[in-house]
Amino acid sequence: MHLFYTPDLSPQESLHTLGAEESRHAAGVLRLRAGERVRLTDGRGAWCEAEILPDSSAREVRVRIVAREAEHGRKPYRLHVAIAPTKNSDRYEWFLEKATEIGVDRITPLLCEHSERKAVRRDRGEKIVLSAVKQSLKAYVPRLDELTTFRDFLADTYIYKYRFVAHCDEATPLQERVELSGAMEAADEKEFCVLIGPEGDFSPAEIAAAKEGAGFVPVSLGESRLRTETAGVMAAAMAQLAARTAHR
Amino acid sequence: MHLFYTPDLSPQESLHTLGAEESRHAAGVLRLRAGERVRLTDGRGAWCEAEILPDSSAREVRVRIVAREAEHGRKPYRLHVAIAPTKNSDRYEWFLEKATEIGVDRITPLLCEHSERKAVRRDRGEKIVLSAVKQSLKAYVPRLDELTTFRDFLADTYIYKYRFVAHCDEATPLQERVELSGAMEAADEKEFCVLIGPEGDFSPAEIAAAKEGAGFVPVSLGESRLRTETAGVMAAAMAQLAARTAHR
Repeated sequence: MHLFYTPDLSPQESLHTLGAEESRHAAGVLRLRAGERVRLTDGRGAWCEAEILPDSSAREVRVRIVAREAEHGRKPYRLHVAIAPTKNSDRYEWFLEKATEIGVDRITPLLCEHSERKAVRRDRGEKIVLSAVKQSLKAYVPRLDELTTFRDFLADTYIYKYRFVAHCDEATPLQERVELSGAMEAADEKEFCVLIGPEGDFSPAEIAAAKEGAGFVPVSLGESRLRTETAGVMAAAMAQLAARTAHR
Repeated sequence: MHLFYTPDLSPQESLHTLGAEESRHAAGVLRLRAGERVRLTDGRGAWCEAEILPDSSAREVRVRIVAREAEHGRKPYRLHVAIAPTKNSDRYEWFLEKATEIGVDRITPLLCEHSERKAVRRDRGEKIVLSAVKQSLKAYVPRLDELTTFRDFLADTYIYKYRFVAHCDEATPLQERVELSGAMEAADEKEFCVLIGPEGDFSPAEIAAAKEGAGFVPVSLGESRLRTETAGVMAAAMAQLAARTAHR
């Protein structure tokens, strides 16, 4: 059954009209006809089964909701990944797709001192995130922020009880550095914010600001030296596994 | 320091000549000169620091080994991922890169009943694996097999004590299905073989052959519905985390 994104879905109304783009996709591309069943989500946990109505047009596909579920597949944790987009934008966009598939709640592209990429196309990123949401049948659409400077981002992170910064600075003594999965498992509330730096890593000043200034704990993402986008995906994988391990 | 792959590295000899391709890369592309230091690995755990010698040419870069380490960064587990290459070869090649970065020992591309891709270029795959090895500074090069039919592959898997098959067949009752990370943590020896099916999943006959015939345990890779290549990367992430969790 095909999944359609309908952010304006009403919690009460049983009749709904798909947006222009989704209508075109349903009627034009997929050639769905009256009587056929589809899935709808508002991207905030609502998960509906609906039937296409006869009074639909190629521009406006109208549906009747026949079953409704709230908080569909809600994760037992929240993860906010702030990551410096890679020089090669394919790698950053690949991260957006994979983190969405595995599970992430919010992504902030970071502008850091050593960033080689100084601009990202948010609209493009949102399309990638949304198609990954549909492909992996999720009822929650991760929030994708505008490119944010590292300093501005730090200022807003106090809301997270658990704040981690992943960086490959070999000068950091191991004892000063916990392992992300371990730290996540140990956490009493599962609300995480993880910072991931650019190819050139965070600058010493940025690390200091994160550690001393904003109380971020330096963490390791494992023994391997990972590319930026791989580190982002490992963070998503670790959060999922840590939350599930803690549940056992 | 740049890493060069020298499979013919001798365990005793202190003098070594880089192969044609590596020599061209060192002298031509990187313009390394006599006296400069480089790293060498034989892809089987040897990890050397070497100095470029004056009698090097653009075709033959000669080095003197100044420091040598065995089993560099050896993982506390072994992972063999057998995966059906995706219809879109970029996705399969992306898996090769990421699994290598995160950690895998052997990869077998599988030809399954529902496979949409019936051929893969092993030489291309090996290049991708090797560049990921160099990028992530590893001393072990994962083995990449030729495309193998599902049945032929099963016949050789008895060597693995822990055999898992990941598939999305919703008909599999949950209690029949363990979670990969949990199963890996519980394992006494860390030698895993994980099967990952094509876009169309394994056929019921293939699942039966793996379960009843070859003793594979059906496992879940988490709540999310993952693409083939993402499932492969999750398996690599889970193995690393499970082995480390078990170590704690």
